[in-house]
Amino acid sequence: MNTLDVKTLNVGIIGYGYWGPNLTRNFFEIPMSELVAISDLKGDRLQRARTLYPDVVTTPDYTELFDMDLDAVVISTPPATHYPLAKECLEHGLHVLVEKPLTLNSEHAEELINLAASKGLTLMVGHTFEYNSAVMALKNYINNGELGDIYYLDAARLNLGLFQKDSNVLWDLAPHDISILLYLLGEKPISVSAQGMQSIFEGIYDVAYMNLVFPNRVSAYIHVSWLDPCKVRRVTVVGSKKMIVYNDMEAEQKLKIYDKGVDMPTYTNGGFSEFLCSYRSGDILIPKIQLVEPLRQECQHFLDSIVNHEPPCSDGDDGLSVIKILEAAQRSMANGSTHEVIQW
Amino acid sequence: MNTLDVKTLNVGIIGYGYWGPNLTRNFFEIPMSELVAISDLKGDRLQRARTLYPDVVTTPDYTELFDMDLDAVVISTPPATHYPLAKECLEHGLHVLVEKPLTLNSEHAEELINLAASKGLTLMVGHTFEYNSAVMALKNYINNGELGDIYYLDAARLNLGLFQKDSNVLWDLAPHDISILLYLLGEKPISVSAQGMQSIFEGIYDVAYMNLVFPNRVSAYIHVSWLDPCKVRRVTVVGSKKMIVYNDMEAEQKLKIYDKGVDMPTYTNGGFSEFLCSYRSGDILIPKIQLVEPLRQECQHFLDSIVNHEPPCSDGDDGLSVIKILEAAQRSMANGSTHEVIQW
Amino acid sequence: MNTLDVKTLNVGIIGYGYWGPNLTRNFFEIPMSELVAISDLKGDRLQRARTLYPDVVTTPDYTELFDMDLDAVVISTPPATHYPLAKECLEHGLHVLVEKPLTLNSEHAEELINLAASKGLTLMVGHTFEYNSAVMALKNYINNGELGDIYYLDAARLNLGLFQKDSNVLWDLAPHDISILLYLLGEKPISVSAQGMQSIFEGIYDVAYMNLVFPNRVSAYIHVSWLDPCKVRRVTVVGSKKMIVYNDMEAEQKLKIYDKGVDMPTYTNGGFSEFLCSYRSGDILIPKIQLVEPLRQECQHFLDSIVNHEPPCSDGDDGLSVIKILEAAQRSMANGSTHEVIQW
Amino acid sequence: MNTLDVKTLNVGIIGYGYWGPNLTRNFFEIPMSELVAISDLKGDRLQRARTLYPDVVTTPDYTELFDMDLDAVVISTPPATHYPLAKECLEHGLHVLVEKPLTLNSEHAEELINLAASKGLTLMVGHTFEYNSAVMALKNYINNGELGDIYYLDAARLNLGLFQKDSNVLWDLAPHDISILLYLLGEKPISVSAQGMQSIFEGIYDVAYMNLVFPNRVSAYIHVSWLDPCKVRRVTVVGSKKMIVYNDMEAEQKLKIYDKGVDMPTYTNGGFSEFLCSYRSGDILIPKIQLVEPLRQECQHFLDSIVNHEPPCSDGDDGLSVIKILEAAQRSMANGSTHEVIQW
Repeated sequence: MNTLDVKTLNVGIIGYGYWGPNLTRNFFEIPMSELVAISDLKGDRLQRARTLYPDVVTTPDYTELFDMDLDAVVISTPPATHYPLAKECLEHGLHVLVEKPLTLNSEHAEELINLAASKGLTLMVGHTFEYNSAVMALKNYINNGELGDIYYLDAARLNLGLFQKDSNVLWDLAPHDISILLYLLGEKPISVSAQGMQSIFEGIYDVAYMNLVFPNRVSAYIHVSWLDPCKVRRVTVVGSKKMIVYNDMEAEQKLKIYDKGVDMPTYTNGGFSEFLCSYRSGDILIPKIQLVEPLRQECQHFLDSIVNHEPPCSDGDDGLSVIKILEAAQRSMANGSTHEVIQW
Repeated sequence: MNTLDVKTLNVGIIGYGYWGPNLTRNFFEIPMSELVAISDLKGDRLQRARTLYPDVVTTPDYTELFDMDLDAVVISTPPATHYPLAKECLEHGLHVLVEKPLTLNSEHAEELINLAASKGLTLMVGHTFEYNSAVMALKNYINNGELGDIYYLDAARLNLGLFQKDSNVLWDLAPHDISILLYLLGEKPISVSAQGMQSIFEGIYDVAYMNLVFPNRVSAYIHVSWLDPCKVRRVTVVGSKKMIVYNDMEAEQKLKIYDKGVDMPTYTNGGFSEFLCSYRSGDILIPKIQLVEPLRQECQHFLDSIVNHEPPCSDGDDGLSVIKILEAAQRSMANGSTHEVIQW
Repeated sequence: MNTLDVKTLNVGIIGYGYWGPNLTRNFFEIPMSELVAISDLKGDRLQRARTLYPDVVTTPDYTELFDMDLDAVVISTPPATHYPLAKECLEHGLHVLVEKPLTLNSEHAEELINLAASKGLTLMVGHTFEYNSAVMALKNYINNGELGDIYYLDAARLNLGLFQKDSNVLWDLAPHDISILLYLLGEKPISVSAQGMQSIFEGIYDVAYMNLVFPNRVSAYIHVSWLDPCKVRRVTVVGSKKMIVYNDMEAEQKLKIYDKGVDMPTYTNGGFSEFLCSYRSGDILIPKIQLVEPLRQECQHFLDSIVNHEPPCSDGDDGLSVIKILEAAQRSMANGSTHEVIQW
Repeated sequence: MNTLDVKTLNVGIIGYGYWGPNLTRNFFEIPMSELVAISDLKGDRLQRARTLYPDVVTTPDYTELFDMDLDAVVISTPPATHYPLAKECLEHGLHVLVEKPLTLNSEHAEELINLAASKGLTLMVGHTFEYNSAVMALKNYINNGELGDIYYLDAARLNLGLFQKDSNVLWDLAPHDISILLYLLGEKPISVSAQGMQSIFEGIYDVAYMNLVFPNRVSAYIHVSWLDPCKVRRVTVVGSKKMIVYNDMEAEQKLKIYDKGVDMPTYTNGGFSEFLCSYRSGDILIPKIQLVEPLRQECQHFLDSIVNHEPPCSDGDDGLSVIKILEAAQRSMANGSTHEVIQW
């Protein structure tokens, strides 16, 4: 396709609160999109949007966007509104990029997926880390066998968090890590268990630990917290040949590849040795990762998916998978950390 | 008591493998003890001991120690031998310091406790971290209310580990963290759950996650691993006023006190605010901790306990508590991470 | 002054290359200024400016700005053009904020200072670090005696640098550290010496070490490099009571206050002790610094200085001082690191 | 040579203060040496030595060592006594390992070198870092061309230091870095300049900066300080192809190899481009360095040199070179940081 022929897509934003401004800036700057309108219920946010984008329409009434000849809408509103807003946008024939989590339950997610499919529209969820260069490089190392067999993954996302009504630390933070795990492994977990704490407010989980069991005995652990003094964003992948730590808090050195492992004895002399095996500890490599804003790559991918009529990497099914895992984890937390098998 | 009158105690060592040399060096150097004999089954170890301590008796037969007019014996042999060796030593009227874990099951531990009590002998287990200046300072901060109400603790002890037959990562590493938790909180957990992985060898857990539920809804999490690329030894304590991270990998700055927390709103105006509360992030203090070798303090404490006829901090009961928690965790791992209530 | 009465100042930008976009964004966002025009010789830069600020005039000809009823101009062009551009702007009655270094020699700087004074205009140079919250806090600690007597300061600013024609590492990086030192100490150095290396290109210094001697025997050392594998931006201040490290590479913990020092003996018993004194090593405090974009504070300060008819913190004299020190350092490097006394 | 035929060398220690115990422990443990006697003027030190080595002779009178049929003597006394003690030991036909600095002036060092040569004795100085595995690996990287042409080296050795009478920070700390530089480059500097501060005591330099100019325009900078809040031990080597940082404060990851550099333009299109060149930033490699106690390797090397009649790596000439550089630096500091050409 000749780049001169690339259609410019008209984009509207619904929700200009915490994350919306970042999405807005990217769609404003990407040549392939035309930022047409921004909608938010709060006047001060619209005022700020007008300062930055004086030529863009701002309105407290998102339904006005339906009369603006838009191609696509980006929804970054509170999670509870994702479903009705996305549904209405799809019904008006608009492609939709919605922030994570896609919806608050899997029925709603399935409804949106079916609606988008029936209308031939693109439905994408904002799992940013699937567009992160370091995560993409990590997936490459896994796929090309550099790590050997994968034993397990351990993810942590900790910090002091903003407590929100109608949410909890699981739904707020774990979507990131779940989407990373699904993306890295290319598989869905068989079962999930979780336990959580309600330290500050009765009824609001602020610390949670999850376990996901994948096929081939691969396990993954996720620790999320709104109550930790240190900001941590880390995924460790342990394989039979090598181990990788992805530390998103590092400015540049985000991946560290450890030539470490446990070597099994090549023979056992009849009996049983005192130490079953020895460990190997070799070089550490910190590969150069080209730094690109992940959100820029996500926004560009949304536009490309629309134009090329191809499902995006983080499509509705991906969003649904994350929600089904969150639902199972929530059930597990409520039931004393039972193992919840997920029906796919 | 006048220091001139302090009795010098005759000490023997059983087990001169990985940890024994450290215990030996300390009892050799402490003025209050006289290192008399070292026993180990392996000749090369005894050879090395003779090089360092040419005047100390070395023997492959530990029973020879019973004829040497010893006051106390230090046992640092493989865990499976702790019980029979400690029992035999106590029966010979010797005070006993035994490495962690005290025994491999709680019945044996109770038997040793009763035996020591009936004979008026000191039974102490080598929970080193209870004699660590940083852990002691951390307990002080908790006790004097500096942290406010304790919400939870999170401990991690990770590294490439030496796989051993008849052991697993839980029994190898978790005793440290469990003894720290019991010491810090001054309480015993109500229930325990755990899950583990057998990545390398069928039947040997090499990664484990534990949850301990304490009274007053305090929870503690422990992550131990023999399969991690990074050496981690960290305990995070989260309180309502402040949070502390104890990082044992730091050479000097082992404690960091964060003036961080979540402040609840003082009033709610009828409705319900969007954000339930705000977080507070103030100064960080790294207190000067006087560095003393914890093992030196532990060995001295053993000798003092004997002379003063006082139960040591890490006495048999403490060792038993750790074992009952390990047993419950082991049951939980075997049963699919059930919540195991512990009978105290 | 009632904020309702605050005059909005019309601002133009000359130079939209590396740093200009940051200045532009701030003047665009600050309510007290109206961004009117952007000038740059390169079309692609103007194109990018038009994308972000469609309502702002863009032009390759900066002289057009003189017909736009502007109040102030911001100059962020290559250093060699600072003098003629600033001069022309002042002659047209415009207040001027010019990037560092103010000019390439002190005669030109003096001429600009005199010109601004004679016309009653504000002349300010963009020494950003004087508007950095961490540097301001550091100055407070020095001024209120927390550190005791200042012994010396050591500054390092290292990285792989972009080699530029007609510049060198001294003129590129050292203005930051020199302006920080002048600001922190509130004094001007008596003499300067420097040595440099021309590793890559004959005639272009890419590594330099400077020494500044201040009154009261206070010394300061500056190490700047375009050829270092690690990005370093650090100032260490050593006082008789405490020591502070300002590490600008830290995201949040930019200041560390060490209760460390050397205590002199209170008496000497006739002879002379083997060790003259002992060192003291106490707590470390990491104070909470409120993070504000320094450039925002700088831009706001420029506007405030104009409206209030008050000399800015980094006024022309400040810019001149930095240049006289750079000139002396350059002479010293050329003459084999002679000590160059500066006439103030 | 058959290891069964290796002669065991009888070794005596003179000086059991700060560093002596480490030397003593190594010679006690190395099979090839027999630790015979320890001498020190202070009774409490001898008492401690007797506790650790009950079978070794201890005496306050070092001359007693001359009647003990020793092969070699290790001198770790205050620097001012190095010359007379080493001289006396050599005159008694003993091989000598003396702590750095070899002597307090070059005449004395030359005298010892000549004396040892005339008697066919080994004279070695304790430049420990020449026996450090990380430094040895670093030298390998330089020698095999991995770094390309060496541009410069920058070394820092900082901490709170023990102030000593009759010494200063230069003579206390810089011998380490000078010996490292000489070892790494395999060349001697043409000239030296230095500047220092006397912050605490008039007449005692406690902070110093040195510059060493080597052949082929290679420069080296050394920063030593007794007055810094952070413990720093770092050498950076910058080459045309790669750069290496040796950080001795890291427990394991002591070397980091940066594939970074500045690439010169392959052509210039008639004029002169704005940016002369671009920088390249690739992977970082942390090679596995086998950890061996450097002092153990040093002590073994001393014994090997004696037995093999080969000059040690850090022989008298090496010690003399360090002293001549220190003398020149001292002169430079006294004369206002003149460039002192060294006659070799």
